[in-house]
Amino acid sequence: MVNSPSQRTVIGQRLRRPDAPDKVKGTALYIEDLDFAGSLWGGVLRSPHAHARIRKLDTARARGVPGVRAVITAKEIPGRNVIPMVQSDWPVLAQDFVRHVGEGVAVVAADTREALAEGLAAVQVEYEPLPALLDMEEALAAGEVMARYKVRRGEASVALTRSDLIVVEGTYQTPYQEHAYIEPNGMIAAPDGTGGVVVHGSMQCPFYVQKGVASALGLDLNRVRIVQTVTGGGFGGKEDAPSAPGAHAALLAMATGRPVRLILTREEDMAVMSKRHPARVQVKLGATRHGHLIAAEIDYLLDGGAYATLSPVVLFRGTVHACGPYRVPNVKVESRVVRTHKVPCGAFRGFGEPQVVFAFEAALDELAERLGQDPLVLRLKNALQIGDETITGHRLSESVGFREVLEQVAAASDWKRKREEYARERGTVRRGVGLAACYYGVGLGAMGKHLNPAGANVVVAGDGSVTVAVGTTEIGQGMVTVLTQIAAESLGCPPDAVRVMEADTSRVPDSGPTVASRTTVMSGNAIRDAAAKIRAAMEPVIADSGLPWREAVALCVQKQIGLAAHGWAVPPATTFDLATGQGEAYVCYSFSANVVEVEVDTETGETRVKGVWSGHDVGRVVNPTLGEGQVEGGVVQGLGYALTEEHALRDGRILNDQFSTYIIPTPLDVPEIKSVLVESPFPWGPYGAKGLGETPIIAVAPAVVAAIHHAARIRLYTLPATPERVWDAIRALPPPGEAASG
Amino acid sequence: MVNSPSQRTVIGQRLRRPDAPDKVKGTALYIEDLDFAGSLWGGVLRSPHAHARIRKLDTARARGVPGVRAVITAKEIPGRNVIPMVQSDWPVLAQDFVRHVGEGVAVVAADTREALAEGLAAVQVEYEPLPALLDMEEALAAGEVMARYKVRRGEASVALTRSDLIVVEGTYQTPYQEHAYIEPNGMIAAPDGTGGVVVHGSMQCPFYVQKGVASALGLDLNRVRIVQTVTGGGFGGKEDAPSAPGAHAALLAMATGRPVRLILTREEDMAVMSKRHPARVQVKLGATRHGHLIAAEIDYLLDGGAYATLSPVVLFRGTVHACGPYRVPNVKVESRVVRTHKVPCGAFRGFGEPQVVFAFEAALDELAERLGQDPLVLRLKNALQIGDETITGHRLSESVGFREVLEQVAAASDWKRKREEYARERGTVRRGVGLAACYYGVGLGAMGKHLNPAGANVVVAGDGSVTVAVGTTEIGQGMVTVLTQIAAESLGCPPDAVRVMEADTSRVPDSGPTVASRTTVMSGNAIRDAAAKIRAAMEPVIADSGLPWREAVALCVQKQIGLAAHGWAVPPATTFDLATGQGEAYVCYSFSANVVEVEVDTETGETRVKGVWSGHDVGRVVNPTLGEGQVEGGVVQGLGYALTEEHALRDGRILNDQFSTYIIPTPLDVPEIKSVLVESPFPWGPYGAKGLGETPIIAVAPAVVAAIHHAARIRLYTLPATPERVWDAIRALPPPGEAASG
Repeated sequence: MVNSPSQRTVIGQRLRRPDAPDKVKGTALYIEDLDFAGSLWGGVLRSPHAHARIRKLDTARARGVPGVRAVITAKEIPGRNVIPMVQSDWPVLAQDFVRHVGEGVAVVAADTREALAEGLAAVQVEYEPLPALLDMEEALAAGEVMARYKVRRGEASVALTRSDLIVVEGTYQTPYQEHAYIEPNGMIAAPDGTGGVVVHGSMQCPFYVQKGVASALGLDLNRVRIVQTVTGGGFGGKEDAPSAPGAHAALLAMATGRPVRLILTREEDMAVMSKRHPARVQVKLGATRHGHLIAAEIDYLLDGGAYATLSPVVLFRGTVHACGPYRVPNVKVESRVVRTHKVPCGAFRGFGEPQVVFAFEAALDELAERLGQDPLVLRLKNALQIGDETITGHRLSESVGFREVLEQVAAASDWKRKREEYARERGTVRRGVGLAACYYGVGLGAMGKHLNPAGANVVVAGDGSVTVAVGTTEIGQGMVTVLTQIAAESLGCPPDAVRVMEADTSRVPDSGPTVASRTTVMSGNAIRDAAAKIRAAMEPVIADSGLPWREAVALCVQKQIGLAAHGWAVPPATTFDLATGQGEAYVCYSFSANVVEVEVDTETGETRVKGVWSGHDVGRVVNPTLGEGQVEGGVVQGLGYALTEEHALRDGRILNDQFSTYIIPTPLDVPEIKSVLVESPFPWGPYGAKGLGETPIIAVAPAVVAAIHHAARIRLYTLPATPERVWDAIRALPPPGEAASG
Repeated sequence: MVNSPSQRTVIGQRLRRPDAPDKVKGTALYIEDLDFAGSLWGGVLRSPHAHARIRKLDTARARGVPGVRAVITAKEIPGRNVIPMVQSDWPVLAQDFVRHVGEGVAVVAADTREALAEGLAAVQVEYEPLPALLDMEEALAAGEVMARYKVRRGEASVALTRSDLIVVEGTYQTPYQEHAYIEPNGMIAAPDGTGGVVVHGSMQCPFYVQKGVASALGLDLNRVRIVQTVTGGGFGGKEDAPSAPGAHAALLAMATGRPVRLILTREEDMAVMSKRHPARVQVKLGATRHGHLIAAEIDYLLDGGAYATLSPVVLFRGTVHACGPYRVPNVKVESRVVRTHKVPCGAFRGFGEPQVVFAFEAALDELAERLGQDPLVLRLKNALQIGDETITGHRLSESVGFREVLEQVAAASDWKRKREEYARERGTVRRGVGLAACYYGVGLGAMGKHLNPAGANVVVAGDGSVTVAVGTTEIGQGMVTVLTQIAAESLGCPPDAVRVMEADTSRVPDSGPTVASRTTVMSGNAIRDAAAKIRAAMEPVIADSGLPWREAVALCVQKQIGLAAHGWAVPPATTFDLATGQGEAYVCYSFSANVVEVEVDTETGETRVKGVWSGHDVGRVVNPTLGEGQVEGGVVQGLGYALTEEHALRDGRILNDQFSTYIIPTPLDVPEIKSVLVESPFPWGPYGAKGLGETPIIAVAPAVVAAIHHAARIRLYTLPATPERVWDAIRALPPPGEAASG
């Protein structure tokens, strides 16, 4: 062994983030902080119409503007005019038609910001406006379905007619949500001098950007090097979306032979980049009088916007998780994502779950009320356990800590006492506690299995310091720290010897995207694979010498042993039958439940969140501080979704495109958040880890709404729970005398 | 097999350089072309004295100059004040004493070039000048010996007293030589945001710079990332020397938290950076009347300058190769490199051989004359062949193509006819042909074996395009092209699918320096090792399907096979006994011989080179165009060494620090050069390759001087053969009548 047993305890430690000092000091270099000699300003001419035919597109005058170096339209794209995604319908630049406000029509590069503005203004476009589909129900009626899925289990429709069942039914609406990352999307592309291009930028998924750029330029993948800059949050908004500015900047760089910086303003980013899909969910849910769930029918509809991007897979995840972490023997889920003439929606933390989970958990809360049961008891009664099957028929054989999560958040939040005590409140400002839960299939699962594997590249220097490269990205979630710990543990070296590099597509094979709470599991396992190879090379030299790490490395270097290896991780196979919606959709699941405590001012409709107890079974927690950070961040984002965040549109144009009008929680809005981390190890995960990126946001809004119900006796079917909606619902309540019987 | 047999013929092809278009178009980004946001100007305050005590060094005033951001002297260095090299005597910044003109005393970073100049001028230094050792013989007498080596074989001193031998004896002097790379040394260092530093720059040996910077900053190696920018030639001048500006820039970057560009002017670079060592060589050489070499005594002295840098290993190589590629049964070599108060000398193409080979080959030419033998015949008679031993007792068992080289250059140059015909010329301008030869131990050999291994990192993308990273560098020699061919051949992919990245210390383990003609062999073998692993992973999937490369890769990707691997190459062991100078100094040898044809104007002393036939046994030639390029470049550099290049010094200061006064050959000075490449494969080398970087320069000057002798009957013992020296020698000739008997 290289190291003493006492050193091998890095997993579970609260290692400090190596990237923290720079972020705290403001010296981290985000994309806008980078500068390259001789770089040009790049910009995009965008459609003012939701739907129009391009009658004429004349760039001659723009090309003549002094300082303008290149003007590119669809017809000048050397490769394919498409960002390759699930359906490859998303053009790099509009051709013949524009299909949403803000769609790119031309890109311009110029010497100065002023020349760029002048160049963009000088592009002559004649549009013939066409009727625009702006409503998802209308789009559904028009047959504009991008993708549809189903789950069929038992006989839901028949079961729901059983006379012994209590059945609740409702239709739920959820809004757009902004990712609200720290910095807007931006890319700097530069020719690499050998016929290729290097693109630096803010992103989650370098290999997506690589494919987008390579496709647009008609280059091999190895000629397109993507380097992630410090990225201030992604949340899905930098998953596929950055491929467009990446391709735009790269097109301009190759056309001009110069570096081109194409960085969106906040307003531009908010107006045209990806968001969480608005949704409409119909739920019909039946249980026995004892509270055993018997059947559920769910109709799930997403507004996909103009192009499919990731909508089909977002819909798939929502479909599979539509009934939450509960045993439901009879299930019918119908789901569709429709095409409208609005900004394309895509990946967002939770990935199609927050919408449907809001609806299902709200229905469950209503069912508990109808049954006269405590919502916690109802959930415990139906909670998935080892040996149970999910609604897709996936029999869970390991790592199901859901009951412990429920029990621990209830205990931590003093649920029972508050539930009883607050129910008796009668003042203007009333307290309430609500509960909601979810589960989340870790990784890409059956629908994304071609993207599943991940690589790692581990190089040990002569002094024992270690360089690790992976294909996933640090986007603020703490990947670098967690992988540092996994590398240290698996090599047997001190964590301060480890450095995890920024993502760079030239360092590792395509390792899929940084999404789906897969990073710790996939890159972690890839690192373990590489580390095992390196240790195998070291062992014959160091034998049982008991040498400390750095001395062991020095001995190996002296013996000319190569201390570098690539690792590769491929998850266990999943199976799924799209015709029935049955199968093992994901390799394993994380589980979560939140108790939210609120105060509702019944005179103003204002809701103040007083506390959140957020519980998660995420397998082994590699770094509790970062785990708590994920929980806190997800909860706050969920509170914004629950209470304040939504977009107003007119003619397909987003009206609130600034943080002064699109309202996210501020630090003053953040309540005390208590993380409850339950460790039910996932044997295939590195040291038992599952994933924690997404569960914290999913079941927040339904818990908030349930708490509002507990406080104010109102049921909300539409998010966010703004003071206006709460006030309206309170006004609509029957007079106090009648309410007492409810 | 992945590919059809017809594809597997990449070795030996004249593949075009992928880096050529950018260099030709002027779009390649050399260090001075790079710019980083917020970067500062860095500069070095340099000693005006060859030797002095620093009585006072006060930076307070400099720090107060507006725009000055940092002033660093030896005492502010956080790590060790030394560039770690062979003897680790070379300070990053002078401490207490300065030991050569131009030695760095302080470094300054400032907002503008002007503020930098003002800041440098405001540093207050009081020097107490001390006596300076400026002459190597005086330094030897004073015992200032940095390193010494010897070779002992047989009984040279005794043998040279044999009365049956013809003995020649002479003392030879060779000058400084400038590397005259395209761009001066320069580095841009920037904090990496996680406590480390990234240094971009012009260099040959990123891992040397890494060690230098890490040592000065007190950082782990993985915190110091060195990225090579496009480098316009190294020739040894960017081997160890860049570590100093690298450390200077990095110190300033870490002190200021800003990127710092520290780029030397040409004058500064020429005045203070490394050069070829001036040398004095005494040769005593005896042969039988039939021309069999019996004994040689060589005393080899190098002027190392103020610090050892690479001088000891330069001396070692010269020592081992002192008698050229000939059988000499009795040999005594004494060699020393001495310390003087001048700019440190170091690596230069040929690495200690050009000086001693000039001397030995000149003596051999004189011996041929004394024996009345054709110089070619004399060399053929004594040429090393398989089964022979070198003067260090290394029995050559393979890959010795020296005789073929001699025969082929003689044939190609029409040696015999010209030798006879030109000898009869009597005009003012007379023609002559001269011959000289050398051999060169490939790679680092016994003295550098700790640096011997090399790594390669090969990653195959989903479309079959390939990214290769190695630890050696493209410095204009064509490494990228040659390794592209080796990667394509060993993977079985088309060469246009391969991309070789710029060197970056974070990609591969320490792979030693890019020197000693080792790059093709070492990085080539490391690539083959990595490729073998990748093919081993592919074979079970593709079986004998006969799929073309890209389809085979697609199939493997579909099967989730990881297509990336690190390769590692460790050369066969060498042995050497420093006490006797006997052993296998290098793993194998390249062989070379040049025929040079000149015209000498006996009235002006001017020599015009009319043709060079340059022959090389370098094993398998991976790319003949690049092989010829190496030969042509080396020959031209050798002609400069032979004819025009030298430095004038006063008080240890180099007076000619510009290309207007330091004269290198221009295109107009370049004669027709005919490359003769002999392929005597080296089985351990990739596809049989040995090395070709250095042989082209080594035996040029002696061939030129021999040709001048053939034309003008003068023997020159001092380089360069300027018109003045030639004219002086002609004047000193005995009158025609007496000369005819010579």
